[in-house]
Amino acid sequence: MDDRVREHARTLVDWSARIEAGDDVVVQVDEGAHDLAVAVAEQLGRRDANLLATYGSDELRRAYLRAHDGEFDADPEYELAMYDRADSVLILKGTHNTAGTADVPSDRRQAHSKARRGIREARLDTDWVSTQHPTRAMAQQAGMAYEAYADFVYDATLRDWEALAEEQARLKTILDDGETVRIVADGTDLTMSIAGRTAVNSAASVAYGSHNLPSGEVFTAPEGTEGVVTFDVPMTIQGRRVRDVELTFEDGAVVDFAAAQGEAVVEEVLETDEGARRLGELGVGMNRGVDRITDNILFDEKMGGTVHLALGRAYDACLPEGAAGNDSAVHEDLITTMGEGSRLEVDGEIVQEDGQFRWE
Amino acid sequence: MDDRVREHARTLVDWSARIEAGDDVVVQVDEGAHDLAVAVAEQLGRRDANLLATYGSDELRRAYLRAHDGEFDADPEYELAMYDRADSVLILKGTHNTAGTADVPSDRRQAHSKARRGIREARLDTDWVSTQHPTRAMAQQAGMAYEAYADFVYDATLRDWEALAEEQARLKTILDDGETVRIVADGTDLTMSIAGRTAVNSAASVAYGSHNLPSGEVFTAPEGTEGVVTFDVPMTIQGRRVRDVELTFEDGAVVDFAAAQGEAVVEEVLETDEGARRLGELGVGMNRGVDRITDNILFDEKMGGTVHLALGRAYDACLPEGAAGNDSAVHEDLITTMGEGSRLEVDGEIVQEDGQFRWE
Repeated sequence: MDDRVREHARTLVDWSARIEAGDDVVVQVDEGAHDLAVAVAEQLGRRDANLLATYGSDELRRAYLRAHDGEFDADPEYELAMYDRADSVLILKGTHNTAGTADVPSDRRQAHSKARRGIREARLDTDWVSTQHPTRAMAQQAGMAYEAYADFVYDATLRDWEALAEEQARLKTILDDGETVRIVADGTDLTMSIAGRTAVNSAASVAYGSHNLPSGEVFTAPEGTEGVVTFDVPMTIQGRRVRDVELTFEDGAVVDFAAAQGEAVVEEVLETDEGARRLGELGVGMNRGVDRITDNILFDEKMGGTVHLALGRAYDACLPEGAAGNDSAVHEDLITTMGEGSRLEVDGEIVQEDGQFRWE
Repeated sequence: MDDRVREHARTLVDWSARIEAGDDVVVQVDEGAHDLAVAVAEQLGRRDANLLATYGSDELRRAYLRAHDGEFDADPEYELAMYDRADSVLILKGTHNTAGTADVPSDRRQAHSKARRGIREARLDTDWVSTQHPTRAMAQQAGMAYEAYADFVYDATLRDWEALAEEQARLKTILDDGETVRIVADGTDLTMSIAGRTAVNSAASVAYGSHNLPSGEVFTAPEGTEGVVTFDVPMTIQGRRVRDVELTFEDGAVVDFAAAQGEAVVEEVLETDEGARRLGELGVGMNRGVDRITDNILFDEKMGGTVHLALGRAYDACLPEGAAGNDSAVHEDLITTMGEGSRLEVDGEIVQEDGQFRWE
């Protein structure tokens, strides 16, 4: 076994999920994540935690959903009971085919998702962590050879997380104390208010309220956005390619939009509901191990020297206790590169210039 | 997908497990059983049953058990809660390596098994069914090419089970009404009492109290065994090869034994406890789709034209309500071929001669 698989498992179990003896751990194993699952099982054994492995297969899901009549039972009790009692859920992503469920009718998918709301909430109530094992399918999605993709995944994942958490704490302090953010980049000049909002130091650990490995971003919930932004990073939204999205904001809401590719899907997102025209998240990527875009949001939005904004729902963790943030059925992240000539300012002071933080 | 995989899944879900709409079904997917699992998922979707797939990986189990200190939590509540509420458990066997857990210390294995007694009982309380997907590892164990092994598995599994259940009912009636069984074959002349005992028509369906697919045997619980028996079918017992075991019974108990190979492991079995020297089962194989020995007890003991006897524990289903049968920590099946010159008699009447039932 590649030593990095063991190191990945150790990082997941220790740093990310903080597993302790006696913890009841569900490990969701995707079709292509077997090797990581073996390494995780070893780490769980070493810590005297309990292990229950579920099989997260796209091909099973497709076969089941396509054959079903669409009237799903609400939250089957046997599965709900399991997640209700679990301490942690470790999600080991690693598909053999990123288009593996492409022919499942979307209404079937939505009906299934809706019927499992209680199960989803029970999972989110655990110390859950989602991570990615490199597969050939994910390499293909990234347009990379497998070996090179595996190197990329481990460079992004096997970081000095403690040091990054400390660096991110600096930005969190600036954002927590700040009132106005301005982003200037190629095709972008945007201002927004973050007054009274709390930034999350997303350092790939449940101890930081962060549930992705890798992570490496600081995010908050903006409002009152004004100006223009261009997202130069290509994305896949609902299975469709989107490139060079340009949004114009007035009084917090999108009033105009355009895209070099995928304009129709951008329009669909914006028309979902009232909240879909407003921002739910401002995120600043700080993971310098992510050095390229691989068409996987788990990695792309964490890339050092990028900023992402999400249309739609805001995270509660960013809001004052009991306050309501932007609400929507969607949360769609869009990413812009902070290159030469770019500036990230908080209350008029430069925090990042030409893609480099002032402390770098 | 091989049509036979779909047919296997249909047989499992309909004939064997009798799945109905709304059933809460756990599907345990071995490393090499993915294709069968996809077909089973399709069948479960078609019947509007609920699906929860667990991952039955020998490599995960090995890694976990070897790393653990051996002090296992008793029946982790999240897993127990799941099985307590499940209606059915479908076990899809299909290992990539029959020696995959060979280096797990046996005391570790036993401690883990002991700690999970409640979970095991909860599983056995469901309408569980165990079946085999053909893998290259299982073909290798059988000494067969993969394609030939797959043919073998489907010949044994895709039977006209209704017709076989009817044929087996004839033998069940004879055994239920009978008092004494005599088995005569090469190196074998054995008599035993089955008075008051009930035979099980094991027709690969929970509706018949049968939990294996394939099945195809009728079994009961004998006592008072007298005479000599030679088991000419080679077996693997506790990982060790055993061949041509000869047992001599007096007054129901083994008084002498020998074996051409593996005599030591036979001795270990016999010395387990008092009940290990007595028979717990007389089984008559009636599956004519099993036409060769493949070193897999799930198939071997069902082979038409064989009889098997188990040292140790008797099944409750064969005993009068509330009565105690032979008790033991072991249940070791041994198989003898009913060839030329062999006879199976009940109360002096011939039921099978030269390996053919009188109605064949």
